[in-house]
Amino acid sequence: MRRLRMAMVGGGPGSFIGPVHRIAAELDREIELVAGAFSSDAPRSAEAGRAYRIEPERAYPTLGAMLEAETQRPDGIDFVSIVTPNYNHLASARAVLAAGIPVLTDKPMTATWAEARELAALVEASGLPFGVTHTYAGYPLVREARARVAAGGLGTIRKVVVEYPQGWLAGEAAGKQAEWRVDPARCGEGGCIGDIGVHAFQLAEFITGLKVTRLLADLAAVVPGRALDDDCSVLLRFANGARGVLLASQIEVGELNSLRIRVYGDRAGLIWRQEDPNILFLNRIDGTSEVIRAGTGLLGADAAARTRTPGGHPEGYLEAFANIYRDFAAVLRGEQAPLLPGIEAGLRGMAFISTAVTASSENMGWVSLNA
Amino acid sequence: MRRLRMAMVGGGPGSFIGPVHRIAAELDREIELVAGAFSSDAPRSAEAGRAYRIEPERAYPTLGAMLEAETQRPDGIDFVSIVTPNYNHLASARAVLAAGIPVLTDKPMTATWAEARELAALVEASGLPFGVTHTYAGYPLVREARARVAAGGLGTIRKVVVEYPQGWLAGEAAGKQAEWRVDPARCGEGGCIGDIGVHAFQLAEFITGLKVTRLLADLAAVVPGRALDDDCSVLLRFANGARGVLLASQIEVGELNSLRIRVYGDRAGLIWRQEDPNILFLNRIDGTSEVIRAGTGLLGADAAARTRTPGGHPEGYLEAFANIYRDFAAVLRGEQAPLLPGIEAGLRGMAFISTAVTASSENMGWVSLNA
Amino acid sequence: MRRLRMAMVGGGPGSFIGPVHRIAAELDREIELVAGAFSSDAPRSAEAGRAYRIEPERAYPTLGAMLEAETQRPDGIDFVSIVTPNYNHLASARAVLAAGIPVLTDKPMTATWAEARELAALVEASGLPFGVTHTYAGYPLVREARARVAAGGLGTIRKVVVEYPQGWLAGEAAGKQAEWRVDPARCGEGGCIGDIGVHAFQLAEFITGLKVTRLLADLAAVVPGRALDDDCSVLLRFANGARGVLLASQIEVGELNSLRIRVYGDRAGLIWRQEDPNILFLNRIDGTSEVIRAGTGLLGADAAARTRTPGGHPEGYLEAFANIYRDFAAVLRGEQAPLLPGIEAGLRGMAFISTAVTASSENMGWVSLNA
Amino acid sequence: MRRLRMAMVGGGPGSFIGPVHRIAAELDREIELVAGAFSSDAPRSAEAGRAYRIEPERAYPTLGAMLEAETQRPDGIDFVSIVTPNYNHLASARAVLAAGIPVLTDKPMTATWAEARELAALVEASGLPFGVTHTYAGYPLVREARARVAAGGLGTIRKVVVEYPQGWLAGEAAGKQAEWRVDPARCGEGGCIGDIGVHAFQLAEFITGLKVTRLLADLAAVVPGRALDDDCSVLLRFANGARGVLLASQIEVGELNSLRIRVYGDRAGLIWRQEDPNILFLNRIDGTSEVIRAGTGLLGADAAARTRTPGGHPEGYLEAFANIYRDFAAVLRGEQAPLLPGIEAGLRGMAFISTAVTASSENMGWVSLNA
Repeated sequence: MRRLRMAMVGGGPGSFIGPVHRIAAELDREIELVAGAFSSDAPRSAEAGRAYRIEPERAYPTLGAMLEAETQRPDGIDFVSIVTPNYNHLASARAVLAAGIPVLTDKPMTATWAEARELAALVEASGLPFGVTHTYAGYPLVREARARVAAGGLGTIRKVVVEYPQGWLAGEAAGKQAEWRVDPARCGEGGCIGDIGVHAFQLAEFITGLKVTRLLADLAAVVPGRALDDDCSVLLRFANGARGVLLASQIEVGELNSLRIRVYGDRAGLIWRQEDPNILFLNRIDGTSEVIRAGTGLLGADAAARTRTPGGHPEGYLEAFANIYRDFAAVLRGEQAPLLPGIEAGLRGMAFISTAVTASSENMGWVSLNA
Repeated sequence: MRRLRMAMVGGGPGSFIGPVHRIAAELDREIELVAGAFSSDAPRSAEAGRAYRIEPERAYPTLGAMLEAETQRPDGIDFVSIVTPNYNHLASARAVLAAGIPVLTDKPMTATWAEARELAALVEASGLPFGVTHTYAGYPLVREARARVAAGGLGTIRKVVVEYPQGWLAGEAAGKQAEWRVDPARCGEGGCIGDIGVHAFQLAEFITGLKVTRLLADLAAVVPGRALDDDCSVLLRFANGARGVLLASQIEVGELNSLRIRVYGDRAGLIWRQEDPNILFLNRIDGTSEVIRAGTGLLGADAAARTRTPGGHPEGYLEAFANIYRDFAAVLRGEQAPLLPGIEAGLRGMAFISTAVTASSENMGWVSLNA
Repeated sequence: MRRLRMAMVGGGPGSFIGPVHRIAAELDREIELVAGAFSSDAPRSAEAGRAYRIEPERAYPTLGAMLEAETQRPDGIDFVSIVTPNYNHLASARAVLAAGIPVLTDKPMTATWAEARELAALVEASGLPFGVTHTYAGYPLVREARARVAAGGLGTIRKVVVEYPQGWLAGEAAGKQAEWRVDPARCGEGGCIGDIGVHAFQLAEFITGLKVTRLLADLAAVVPGRALDDDCSVLLRFANGARGVLLASQIEVGELNSLRIRVYGDRAGLIWRQEDPNILFLNRIDGTSEVIRAGTGLLGADAAARTRTPGGHPEGYLEAFANIYRDFAAVLRGEQAPLLPGIEAGLRGMAFISTAVTASSENMGWVSLNA
Repeated sequence: MRRLRMAMVGGGPGSFIGPVHRIAAELDREIELVAGAFSSDAPRSAEAGRAYRIEPERAYPTLGAMLEAETQRPDGIDFVSIVTPNYNHLASARAVLAAGIPVLTDKPMTATWAEARELAALVEASGLPFGVTHTYAGYPLVREARARVAAGGLGTIRKVVVEYPQGWLAGEAAGKQAEWRVDPARCGEGGCIGDIGVHAFQLAEFITGLKVTRLLADLAAVVPGRALDDDCSVLLRFANGARGVLLASQIEVGELNSLRIRVYGDRAGLIWRQEDPNILFLNRIDGTSEVIRAGTGLLGADAAARTRTPGGHPEGYLEAFANIYRDFAAVLRGEQAPLLPGIEAGLRGMAFISTAVTASSENMGWVSLNA
């Protein structure tokens, strides 16, 4: 029952998501960060290694160096988390998989749809465990929502509204986090649609268990001079004929990270909001409601197993992220973790981004989503 | 300073909106309901007259009888409110205007776009006051929102998201209120789009002061066997290039009357929700917020003048409705009431409905909205 | 089925509560304001009469003149609403009752406990209808809360927490509304405890159906130089042994009119807040909840009968106030209205104020509440 | 920069707070759990050791064994966290301090006031770092609230209302967590007042920077047969004359862990709620408000330094708890951490519990709080 040994690619000084991955990975003490190629700049990688408190010699200047060294060690790494900007995901994953090491990558899975297909082939060929950190699928009440839908509690799904408003890119894109996200060379095909729209997409498919089959996209670069989309409105059709609306924006001033979803069936509807994640509302067609609070006895087995505190002791983003790592650790240990977003979720997300970007011209209309 | 004398067409036994109009009209004691042709069934019209406590002889069996009698009385009516199902609006308005009497009509203004143009011509020819009860424009904080936008507080408007979720038609359309709304013969071209979508549309144009110039519509009759749309997703373009999303649905189980709007400029964003109408949030790009609560000193002159209670004493739907009547009364008295929704708002609403219905086929794409 | 004819004492220019009474009284068209002695200053009374749009000759310079004239008219008044500052309630009520006319008075019923007992004797001797406008008992969901408790839905009541925070008297008491409330000569024994504490007290007894039998009071005049209390903390015991806490304050900066109550039994608890009055939460000991929204099918008969709009169309303070008038009108018509706050509620409220004021010295401890 | 090595006393199988301490301690990777005496039952201690994934030989059967072994190791523990039921805190702390090892203990600091004084003397004599996990002082926005008060943003504090409603002990006290909390032998002098009332007390003193000097307590054992209080209402006086109300209950059905605090000065008031911890409201006497959301630029330096995610990515209870550990780690490293609750906070908490229990008879009235 030793802890799994994790390495990180990316996550150097100034990274937002690197420390988040580190905390999430270690939260349940099933995983330990032991190595990393944190930056393509060797001194910065070393600096990050000190900040993460790993052994100095395991803060590597390059991924290649790390793979070479770690595969020689008796206590070498068990998997690699890729937390670089998008453009690097495929190259890193390719190298890690080639070394026979499982990969967990941040989203979106790759920079482009072509890359995604290449990666899928590599993963399949490798036979190695693979995951994508679609964080929001880790929230206990998102799991509960999914379970309620799957159990038929909502009846036939008719309508999905998923929104992801942010405002932090409404002005100039200043700072490390902002700069690469508005640069096609580092970010990939999509801007907002790839940064957060794909989360909303994944959440909708995750909770409903339905695939989006067609979409109509209205993407825009609202801030003058921006090369990538920063505001996205997408109409959806699901495989069962249900309709959907997916909105994502990074120019909605005052919004922080206000992901929310509403799913309506012919028997009930449910509402969940990421900024108030410990409560889930289920309203039935007879006018009654169910208020499902995290950490209470109303949760089903899967959501309960992903909860660490009793009701009223709020859990949040880091704990949700840790649930993705918990699932990935289970897979590494040979257990089942069917809700871990894997290569299929990654592929579908990339297909969504690519299709939405391609479709977003006013005379395109509805297009098929194939993945 | 006598009270204005109002008559009603429609609003008979079982009507939801008739009593609302009566309360709203009389709330400020500037108007008094004195007559009505409440039902095309004479005994029912008389029954309604008793319920409204008007003089028995002024509960008329037909609109014609009412106009004939009232125009003879020295204390005859000053205006007529039309609260029938939509199909009757034009015919009633035509007769009332022909009798030289001002008209206030419920929304949507008419059943079809052709009717709307006819009514506009009649109104223009008559030179008489005319209004449409777009209720939500009557909320003090909606007025405040409009004033903030007009004063430049949000900067250039970039994005509008207006949603109007309801769930009461998710099952069989049972009961007087539901039945006519799903019947094209009584309801007109639009179902949900005309019943509530048009409110959302008017609210968006009212607050932003911008016209919608183009739209893309995705309307559906979700409940099996329904002839009119009950679920609507519409993408918008405003005259200044701003983008918008308008969602309206009557099949979202558990939603009551959850109209809400978010408007984002390049300097600030604002959020208002009809079910919690006494608070308006304004978030600035510098991260600060303004929480504007009704009845407090933060309101501008127009909103303050439309508020009857101090902060913390909630006002609601009836008071908002009464503000529309207050504006209409002002017009009848020869005063200015520039925010009263009039023939132009009515025309634009009907153009919106008609265009959305026409455009809602998957290969239509973006269409112009001309009104 | 003619409308009842109402007169008002007080409510002159600058009054907050006068117009509220007028709107509330007339909302359901069962009552019509026809006369008033709106001010002890004749020109101001006339000015108010014009503002209320009553006939000029029925805006009287004094209550005496009004009673003399109205009792002579064939269409004379049916009742008098007393909306003066507290010091005048008894004198006005005495005169009105002496003229054989029913009385509805604003709260607190009188300025002192001695006055309250005198008024109770007068009411009893007169045999006339009498009511006190404890507004908050008029909210539909307060009625629903009461019905749920009465039906045993909460089990045995163990604990009540009722709070009434305001902040408008945190600074200098400026303006007509503030000035008399901090003046013992006009306000009576209690300051905050009489202005709003008594509402909280009435609400607690109304919803629980239990009498407070003992209390411990901690009242203070926090703002320097103030003669009456502006901040009140009171511990309660109910007849069945349940414990309670009643907090009222007018120096809590930023609070508007944030009355709220939580009642806990051994089977369930309920929560209601006046600033968001259209929702009532009931949480059961098994972890399930009931969300009761106004205007929906979840309401019992009494609450439903006090609701004028469908769910999602918010009602507020004026509509709640109108429900008190509706009950009073029912009594005048000889019907039953057991939930109308009458002389007993008025007496209990005054006993509460007087006892709390008397008890509020640090060495008093627990005292009995006798009424 | 090696990680500090932590041992735990208590926290065996079934413990709620043990795993919380482990996660919190390790969250920032400054601390590592390496040893424990998790249970007085040796097999259970070993079982816990496996669950925590520590080395088998460092899961000790007794505290004595642990101290003996660890003080011999070159990589021995740096401090001990005490997470047993209250009755054991003093004995454990005494032994640990005697071994020259710093102590962090769960709250309340001891079982009785006498024990608290003994512990204070031991801590002083030892000269060793000592802390108490008053978790709620770890929330970033609680830190922000404190900073705002300290900077004079509220003016002179006049009123504090702190409430801590729970409902989980409204019925039979079943299960490991409940059983010891209602048993005086294991829980100490106070029931609810010691379990959660002391948190509320600490929070009030922490945010305001004011000491409570006197109190009046109304404690009850509401559930039949219970030996310790389960419902507490306490009136407070602060050193500057400000008034306060502290409510804590474990019989309020439906409440989870709804700690909240409102602090009012003569210039502004603030509101914070633990179940929605990432937002802080500050309302000024001029009617304006400040909405302070965690992770944004509105936070001061101390709160910002205690935040790990950007705005809109909710942090919760575990992260707050981790902030207490971060402060404790800083102290161990010889840095300043003035906001760490230490022996003084622990003493004051125990004085509060003891005084409230003693004072809670109806004829006690106001008593001094000396600590």
